[in-house]
Amino acid sequence: MLCESTGTWRSPGQTPRLSQEGQPITQLYNLASFAEAMLVHERACVKVRHDMPLDRGALIGCAVMTGFGAVVNTARIPVGSSVVVIGCGGIGLSALNGAAVAGAGTIIAVDVSSEKLAAARTFGATHVVDASVEDPVAVVHALTNQGADFAFEAVGRKETAEQAYEMIRYGGTAVVIGMVPQGQKLEIDAEALLMEKTLTGSNMGSNRFREDMPQLVEFYLGGKLHLDDMVTARVGLDDINEAFAAMSAGEVARSVIVFD
Amino acid sequence: MLCESTGTWRSPGQTPRLSQEGQPITQLYNLASFAEAMLVHERACVKVRHDMPLDRGALIGCAVMTGFGAVVNTARIPVGSSVVVIGCGGIGLSALNGAAVAGAGTIIAVDVSSEKLAAARTFGATHVVDASVEDPVAVVHALTNQGADFAFEAVGRKETAEQAYEMIRYGGTAVVIGMVPQGQKLEIDAEALLMEKTLTGSNMGSNRFREDMPQLVEFYLGGKLHLDDMVTARVGLDDINEAFAAMSAGEVARSVIVFD
Amino acid sequence: MLCESTGTWRSPGQTPRLSQEGQPITQLYNLASFAEAMLVHERACVKVRHDMPLDRGALIGCAVMTGFGAVVNTARIPVGSSVVVIGCGGIGLSALNGAAVAGAGTIIAVDVSSEKLAAARTFGATHVVDASVEDPVAVVHALTNQGADFAFEAVGRKETAEQAYEMIRYGGTAVVIGMVPQGQKLEIDAEALLMEKTLTGSNMGSNRFREDMPQLVEFYLGGKLHLDDMVTARVGLDDINEAFAAMSAGEVARSVIVFD
Amino acid sequence: MLCESTGTWRSPGQTPRLSQEGQPITQLYNLASFAEAMLVHERACVKVRHDMPLDRGALIGCAVMTGFGAVVNTARIPVGSSVVVIGCGGIGLSALNGAAVAGAGTIIAVDVSSEKLAAARTFGATHVVDASVEDPVAVVHALTNQGADFAFEAVGRKETAEQAYEMIRYGGTAVVIGMVPQGQKLEIDAEALLMEKTLTGSNMGSNRFREDMPQLVEFYLGGKLHLDDMVTARVGLDDINEAFAAMSAGEVARSVIVFD
Repeated sequence: MLCESTGTWRSPGQTPRLSQEGQPITQLYNLASFAEAMLVHERACVKVRHDMPLDRGALIGCAVMTGFGAVVNTARIPVGSSVVVIGCGGIGLSALNGAAVAGAGTIIAVDVSSEKLAAARTFGATHVVDASVEDPVAVVHALTNQGADFAFEAVGRKETAEQAYEMIRYGGTAVVIGMVPQGQKLEIDAEALLMEKTLTGSNMGSNRFREDMPQLVEFYLGGKLHLDDMVTARVGLDDINEAFAAMSAGEVARSVIVFD
Repeated sequence: MLCESTGTWRSPGQTPRLSQEGQPITQLYNLASFAEAMLVHERACVKVRHDMPLDRGALIGCAVMTGFGAVVNTARIPVGSSVVVIGCGGIGLSALNGAAVAGAGTIIAVDVSSEKLAAARTFGATHVVDASVEDPVAVVHALTNQGADFAFEAVGRKETAEQAYEMIRYGGTAVVIGMVPQGQKLEIDAEALLMEKTLTGSNMGSNRFREDMPQLVEFYLGGKLHLDDMVTARVGLDDINEAFAAMSAGEVARSVIVFD
Repeated sequence: MLCESTGTWRSPGQTPRLSQEGQPITQLYNLASFAEAMLVHERACVKVRHDMPLDRGALIGCAVMTGFGAVVNTARIPVGSSVVVIGCGGIGLSALNGAAVAGAGTIIAVDVSSEKLAAARTFGATHVVDASVEDPVAVVHALTNQGADFAFEAVGRKETAEQAYEMIRYGGTAVVIGMVPQGQKLEIDAEALLMEKTLTGSNMGSNRFREDMPQLVEFYLGGKLHLDDMVTARVGLDDINEAFAAMSAGEVARSVIVFD
Repeated sequence: MLCESTGTWRSPGQTPRLSQEGQPITQLYNLASFAEAMLVHERACVKVRHDMPLDRGALIGCAVMTGFGAVVNTARIPVGSSVVVIGCGGIGLSALNGAAVAGAGTIIAVDVSSEKLAAARTFGATHVVDASVEDPVAVVHALTNQGADFAFEAVGRKETAEQAYEMIRYGGTAVVIGMVPQGQKLEIDAEALLMEKTLTGSNMGSNRFREDMPQLVEFYLGGKLHLDDMVTARVGLDDINEAFAAMSAGEVARSVIVFD
């Protein structure tokens, strides 16, 4: 059961904790970002091992959980599944990592950056497809014979979300992880539905926070979760704008802001 | 695993069993219809109880299995689920019947015919919505608070298939059973996918033929499957065109052709 | 995930809320029984419909949830399953009721009291077996051809729990609901395990409290949950000892204590 | 659904294909063993990749499928599960391998042979327990805090099957793979059933033959299935008695008979 309104709010009339020029301001997604201290609900806390390096643990809470969890929690791919991941940023790489950990068979990464496709191999891809030079739907059908068991979209574009659906076999499942801009509609072949093709999405990796976070820490410390390869830069808070620009330009997987 | 090509064929070069003026002709969907005798593969045969009346048993193989199975096999609705069925012809009535047998809670039938909505109550609907006078999406949201757990489309139209998706709650599942005309696309709100709304379809009720058919016979003989209410006319083969016309006009649920 | 220690306790050193002659006393199972008022954790509260009669609602929280939930939540029986319930007291009758609501096919009740077997038919049994005159294992195998899909033990005796296991088919599941006296061991045929027969148990119907209680209320008010037939007596608190004696003697399904 | 009688037999009165001194003889388990040629039903055939070495492929059909499949098909362990395997012969090593491929977290191997425990690490064990020097139940509870999510018994002894059940947490599952001698009973704590501990077994790894065999070949050729480490000797048919003696003595994982 997913709630429609999940926030924990101060009562009406109470002074907001955060305000700017008299207007209440809130943390991004009620989670807080780029703050040196924050107030969180006790249910949003979980204890992890002391030997977990915090600059890599910081990745688990969002991108890694989202991609890894979409494969492992939302789709619960069976061992031996054929899996496609479209988009090899932080979320897509984590989805590839999840597929590898869960025992997928064929794991196909799709992106338009040869650099990211090289990273994809490190995270578990058995095949890579450069969508700037090949038709990824055709290549996936060729590699999997009749279409993939599962396809995960980690870009957030209408075209790639529709491709995810076209890449799966009869009875297969396409999972949209990326945030397609509000108001856009995906156009889905109605006839394919009768062949029991499924289209769904994943919210924060369908996480069970208190169980999944410590498990991801275990996977990192056991060498199965490739967080070291995901952090491409460590910056200070003053460098945040340059870090965002680099991410938008597709140059890096993830920059971590370090508070000293 | 769904096969892409499921037919059992004579070898190339063999004389076809059925031909007309030298051209091979095939049975509809490889199943045969309106024939006094037919050749079927042994895997397409199943033994049922001798006390099953054949004029009602005839319904099980297609419409009933398709609607009932979409709810019970494809969606496997949990006990207590809220269910919407759009379209109350033979398939939709069978879907309602399946929901009632499987222990659904709220069961909402949607149609534009008050006659069919009255039949829907017989088959298990707890609520009915006349889509010619009310907005069915709004009514479903009001009756279920946040949207239904499951919605089944049994019409085969783009608009109603999209409505099925809009009727479900976050985390809910819409199942398209109706055959939307080839080439048409459904337009699906991409943002809703991130709330883990699922769109899928059902093929012949995801049936496991040899187990499901005898079970449906048991449900009929035990009074749980309402086949008697579904047969609205019995006609001879000579009356087939009138029977089709009546079905297209929405006057009847199902006419059965009786061979004497 | 089941917790090993589920209580919510006052801190060490705090004065106990309930005490007798200086010794702290606790409610039975931390739930409280036979008290006019009690203190419960907010997570142990759930709102139900105002039109639910409280003397029947009182049954839902324990016996009904335990039996109904064992079938519906723990075993999640598929539609059409063959089901045996051994023991037709309050829990067993609720298990039968759950099987009927969930769309079981053959539903077999086993008891040694003809009165309880008569009640079993009201709650959904399609067949009854008087274990004082017939071998229930043999009868179940005969009625189901190769053994039942599911068997539920609602007595709490070693012999009947072992029978439940013997009654199921290869690949079937036996669920022990009854509280077999502490320290007793069940003796299970090891060879049958290789035929994938499963033995498990059910704890309070594997309930998800906040979702299940209101749903059971709906089923009662919708005529599917037979609470009226379960309350065989209404007594005052002063009559509690006689009520317990009657229950132990097997004379009644459930007596409800009414506080005026 | 498991069949009670699965053989495909010649009609009564037909001359048996195999006989000795006039008496019909059958292959072991209807499968044939140690024969240079055999007759099998078409459903017992599956095509595998041409580049699969047959002396390692020979292992897949029985021991590997049985152990690997018990974890992956029967138990379908979720990613991150804690898993115990008791017995590190061919089947147990394959179960460990299955747990590693399926993304288990803690993987504990139990045996009394330090040689086999060393092999267990190669196949994926993160911890090993020598049951000849430690109490394996106590060690498993210590390593997993409250008991393992899953325990697999791959020895076929009453004591170890009971230990598997004692090793699991509330809500956990013990799977008996080993063939406990006919007629022996396992003694199971009835009270633990109420904490939803499950005892089941696995038959030939609950295999779906035509899908699983090619997938296991893929896992071998992809480096994830450790068949090379399992073949400890290659012998001719004349050496079969020595090979059996070595296996019984626990000296080897698997000897393969090579026909030249």
